[in-house]
Amino acid sequence: VNANWPQSIAIIGAGAVGGYYGARLIQHGHTVYLHMRSDAAAVRKSGLQIKSCDGDFILGPTSVHAFEHPRQMPKVDLVIVTLKTTANSEFAELIAPILKENTAIFTLQNGLGNEERLAHLFGSSRILGGVAFVCINRIAPGVISHTDHGLIRLSEMAGRVTERARAVARLFTGSKVACETTDNLAATRWEKLIWNIPFNGLGALLDLTTDKLIKNEFGLSLVHSLMREVISASKGLGIEFPDSIIQQKIEHTSTMGAYKSSMQIDRELGRAMEIEAMFGEPLRAARRPGIELPKLEMLYHSLTLVDNKQWRLS
Amino acid sequence: VNANWPQSIAIIGAGAVGGYYGARLIQHGHTVYLHMRSDAAAVRKSGLQIKSCDGDFILGPTSVHAFEHPRQMPKVDLVIVTLKTTANSEFAELIAPILKENTAIFTLQNGLGNEERLAHLFGSSRILGGVAFVCINRIAPGVISHTDHGLIRLSEMAGRVTERARAVARLFTGSKVACETTDNLAATRWEKLIWNIPFNGLGALLDLTTDKLIKNEFGLSLVHSLMREVISASKGLGIEFPDSIIQQKIEHTSTMGAYKSSMQIDRELGRAMEIEAMFGEPLRAARRPGIELPKLEMLYHSLTLVDNKQWRLS
Repeated sequence: VNANWPQSIAIIGAGAVGGYYGARLIQHGHTVYLHMRSDAAAVRKSGLQIKSCDGDFILGPTSVHAFEHPRQMPKVDLVIVTLKTTANSEFAELIAPILKENTAIFTLQNGLGNEERLAHLFGSSRILGGVAFVCINRIAPGVISHTDHGLIRLSEMAGRVTERARAVARLFTGSKVACETTDNLAATRWEKLIWNIPFNGLGALLDLTTDKLIKNEFGLSLVHSLMREVISASKGLGIEFPDSIIQQKIEHTSTMGAYKSSMQIDRELGRAMEIEAMFGEPLRAARRPGIELPKLEMLYHSLTLVDNKQWRLS
Repeated sequence: VNANWPQSIAIIGAGAVGGYYGARLIQHGHTVYLHMRSDAAAVRKSGLQIKSCDGDFILGPTSVHAFEHPRQMPKVDLVIVTLKTTANSEFAELIAPILKENTAIFTLQNGLGNEERLAHLFGSSRILGGVAFVCINRIAPGVISHTDHGLIRLSEMAGRVTERARAVARLFTGSKVACETTDNLAATRWEKLIWNIPFNGLGALLDLTTDKLIKNEFGLSLVHSLMREVISASKGLGIEFPDSIIQQKIEHTSTMGAYKSSMQIDRELGRAMEIEAMFGEPLRAARRPGIELPKLEMLYHSLTLVDNKQWRLS
């Protein structure tokens, strides 16, 4: 890639995460096209309002390019995918229209399996993957609340750190977003699962915020045992975490207050939950080398059973 | 015990189960005093109405003796305890006032630990235990719906079949209630847990009726794995069930239609759930010989976390 790559960026599925990072890139002078499902009209009318622990800011309507569908956008150099994984079946329709021959596709989605699905459609040479360690909620159309963290870790899908990966990282670090390249994307994904599986899973299943889960003896025991299962699965796949990581994750969670995980909010609002990417894929990945994760399995089956769509369809 | 023992019977906590069995005993000429929490006044005014798969009947107000508190009753020969186990801390207050020197106490409650608690208070020689395999719901004050089964299995607490145990069994069999003595009360209790743990636990946690749990692939998988855990716990305690019992329980459940377990109803109505007797006690019993039951533990912890009282108190 050359020095001023990328000239243009599309963010596909710009909800809370994509909207926040997109706003930071726009704030720092980049050309960004936002694909938004429900909020595009509101954002075209009133712009984007960001309440951030790293500093609030507002982007007026003339400085934000928001679209209901990517076919309305020009083709771009870099596609950042922040779609909910429950919409991954729309990859072809949403991404194909904006690809040039060398357009890179960077998925910043939850869970496992996203890079592979993109590579299957568009070829693995285009694909970068990353993980966002961040607390962000969309609190109204065009209004995003960023309450904690913000670090992105990324690399090429294959795990190598290329000049292209470094260029994407510089894009963020130059836009007030902490970002590192990693030579072990798989470990980064599993590290995020150590937090996501208990707090998104139990948060949605039991309708409890993070503070209630860790303040209660039984909640903490469930969080611990799910984290131990995720760590044992990683280990079976060759990824080692230090024992201290559980305590570290829980201590950090205790600074987050009464945080509602995205999946708790999704269930509350009757929206699709990211069950397959966050629970189904890790469970299947662990089963391949024969690792049993009974509590993760129970969480996966239970959430699927209460999934909002489940009984509407039958 | 002599041939016409017991002359008088009290039913403590006559809700759905105690109300139904009490009504059958009254219908067949026995002297029965019903302790009812909320329904005593309604029953004194309008009697008891039983809709039963074994035949509907109505007991007029003059034929039913209903009391808000047992201290209003005469002392009796036999106390039948059908209190919810969440009220077991009231045993002393509710039972002591109606005991003669040789009054027997027969607990027909859910889960484990009830005989032991009664024996601690009143001496083990008084105590009989039993299990009701029955589908009963209270559908309005003084109106009870009995939809399936009805078998009671009972014995002395110590497990022996005595003349007294046979007399209690005859009391029921002579009142249109199937009843058998058993020489293995522990096995009978664990057999009921094989059904209660998945269907009450998942029913309450996921708010799903029995038909939905067994029609869905993941629901059936959860039911199976919880049943396997209960069976492995029983085995560790020396109680063996044939492998076919799981299929047998599931086939029977499929005849029950869209049945709401008592715990699903309790959670829905914001009432206390029988979590300790049904999940906590079996889990602790299995842990003594070192048996791990990860899914039962997760169910126990999860239900405790969503227990209606949990967050009101804190």
